[in-house]
Amino acid sequence: MATTGTDMSRMREMNQLSIVWALRGNPPSTVTELAGRAGLSRPAVDVLVQALVTDGWAEVEEPGASSVVGRPARRFRFRATAGHALGIDIGVHKILVMVSDLEGDIVRTARRPVDPEAAPEARLAAVDSVIDEVLADAGMTPSDIWAVTVGVTGPVDATGRTTLFSPLPGWHTTDPAAHLATRFTCPVQVENDCKLAAVAERWKGVAQDADDIVFLLAGLRTGAGLILDGTLRRGHGGAAGEIGALKAVRWLTAPDHLESCPGVPATAGEAAAWVFQAAREGDRDAKTAVRRYARDLAIGVAALVLALDPQVVVYGGGFSRSADVILDPLRRELTKHCLRLPELRTSTLGDESVALGALRLALDEIDSRLLRDGLAAPTAPRG
Amino acid sequence: MATTGTDMSRMREMNQLSIVWALRGNPPSTVTELAGRAGLSRPAVDVLVQALVTDGWAEVEEPGASSVVGRPARRFRFRATAGHALGIDIGVHKILVMVSDLEGDIVRTARRPVDPEAAPEARLAAVDSVIDEVLADAGMTPSDIWAVTVGVTGPVDATGRTTLFSPLPGWHTTDPAAHLATRFTCPVQVENDCKLAAVAERWKGVAQDADDIVFLLAGLRTGAGLILDGTLRRGHGGAAGEIGALKAVRWLTAPDHLESCPGVPATAGEAAAWVFQAAREGDRDAKTAVRRYARDLAIGVAALVLALDPQVVVYGGGFSRSADVILDPLRRELTKHCLRLPELRTSTLGDESVALGALRLALDEIDSRLLRDGLAAPTAPRG
Repeated sequence: MATTGTDMSRMREMNQLSIVWALRGNPPSTVTELAGRAGLSRPAVDVLVQALVTDGWAEVEEPGASSVVGRPARRFRFRATAGHALGIDIGVHKILVMVSDLEGDIVRTARRPVDPEAAPEARLAAVDSVIDEVLADAGMTPSDIWAVTVGVTGPVDATGRTTLFSPLPGWHTTDPAAHLATRFTCPVQVENDCKLAAVAERWKGVAQDADDIVFLLAGLRTGAGLILDGTLRRGHGGAAGEIGALKAVRWLTAPDHLESCPGVPATAGEAAAWVFQAAREGDRDAKTAVRRYARDLAIGVAALVLALDPQVVVYGGGFSRSADVILDPLRRELTKHCLRLPELRTSTLGDESVALGALRLALDEIDSRLLRDGLAAPTAPRG
Repeated sequence: MATTGTDMSRMREMNQLSIVWALRGNPPSTVTELAGRAGLSRPAVDVLVQALVTDGWAEVEEPGASSVVGRPARRFRFRATAGHALGIDIGVHKILVMVSDLEGDIVRTARRPVDPEAAPEARLAAVDSVIDEVLADAGMTPSDIWAVTVGVTGPVDATGRTTLFSPLPGWHTTDPAAHLATRFTCPVQVENDCKLAAVAERWKGVAQDADDIVFLLAGLRTGAGLILDGTLRRGHGGAAGEIGALKAVRWLTAPDHLESCPGVPATAGEAAAWVFQAAREGDRDAKTAVRRYARDLAIGVAALVLALDPQVVVYGGGFSRSADVILDPLRRELTKHCLRLPELRTSTLGDESVALGALRLALDEIDSRLLRDGLAAPTAPRG
């Protein structure tokens, strides 16, 4: 079979891609170093990397005026700012938007509180204005964004909606991807908040070393995200991790022990935070309330641990700020139920975990398009 | 870099392997057909396949005396009997041993009942004698077996033992692989019975079309095996699927409703079977007992369904013979608990599922050795 022009062009594209992978995540590299990493000849790499510079995928680092003998080799680096990704957390109480470059470095972040009772239109309008703000701050337009991932609460089905269940008023028929498609020409995907937060812990959080992770998004509501063999598990219909819907595991009622703790002042605003602080200071009623919360939470955690036997359980979400008073009683309860106790770790990503996980999925989307369609696909890179 | 003799020999081995894959699972094939499948030239395939015949990996099917014009092409088939695998189910009540060829076709099966209270030595002696029987019947010696997998009840740790928990008396320190290594020179692996039964359902059972499967091994004890994205999930410490250990999910006590059903005759022997039959015949007490069993079983099943969102739940194990009276009440209960109901299917593999799954893992072991070490590795094929 003769080699066609298309084959040749595809082979050149694949070789260019292998140079991109050889550049990414590495310090500025010489042609010789790139040739070694990519398994290509030096003259071929020389041509390919120049083309990448022309197309905006790579940049030259001119050699400094150091005193080494002879002319130092030019070095090339991946131009991480060739494109950007957007991660959006549409929460119950807040909208959080992050922009990163192609290496995942955060370029801009913007947030805005939102009324938990806001109607879908008002919530989406808030999303739009936070996106406007973050893009304006970064000096970007929507066409600079190569992929968008949106985190929402509730299980996300194949259409990108939370038809089975959403705690947001009127939200179960809302289609955030369709809404954002009016602004962005790049792919927009929607994913469940707990799943995204789990992804973030493995990317930049406390579970970077683990392949089997149960992540808990703990607050007045409790949810779970599962990573097994290093891969986010969505489930057949996108509803994996929803064990909290089962009354027998008591996640729905566990925080009631905090709300009903004797001594919570009428003006406390957020009862849970008051109880955690009081427990920290040794208040007996508060300690009892926390212990009861941990006892009930442990039923569902133990169900997940016994079912999946993870390496790590990450305690995240709003309550993770008070992990110092929660984790010990939780560990004691788990010891009663589990055959084998995994490591219990506290999230350090705070309330940015959902937006960070969204960014990671958006970057994965860009990478899979690069592998599938080649360098021209995501968008025409600006020179 | 110059191509060394070792490189050449490895390349020839890889090409031979690609012919083996092209032969396997296909009807007898001509050199032209093999060349097409393997992406190699006809003259090269001609040489490679002759060498495979000489080494015992392939056989010639001489063309029949049909009346087509010209000399019909010779056809080659994979010699599935070049090696064999052994699957062993060490159960509470029985030992079951199966031998298959390399295509997974069952060559011989032998079983023997065993006292549930038998000590480990007596149980292993029973295993030995069933192995002796099946090998003698098949006209084989241990050196004809290329891989052995053993199914046991309880979670299997990295050392192949059930140190965390085993219902078999004295068994938690037993090392079945070490015992069998005195008889077999091939690899011996040990795996949990529920996990193996799950593998069997995807291989030869009712879940061949599914990638996300919750398998229930239901009897007086209830266990679960999980297949996600087509892969058996062992868990970080081999203890995935052990959700039945959690009291809140009621699997430990669910069969009590059957045992304590009013009307079970003192001579009934196995109360559960009597209750299922009585329920089938319309007995009101028996139907209530089955409904209560299903109600309690459903808590743990719902926990797994909500946690993992599988495509299929397979109801297997001893009780699956009575699925006709169990599945409807189970489905009704699950509908109350679950956000999304997966398909409920009944196992048709009966009490052979654990041994079948063991065979499948043994065959996988042989295949992975072939890919890693080449055709010479599993054992010297008999010519």
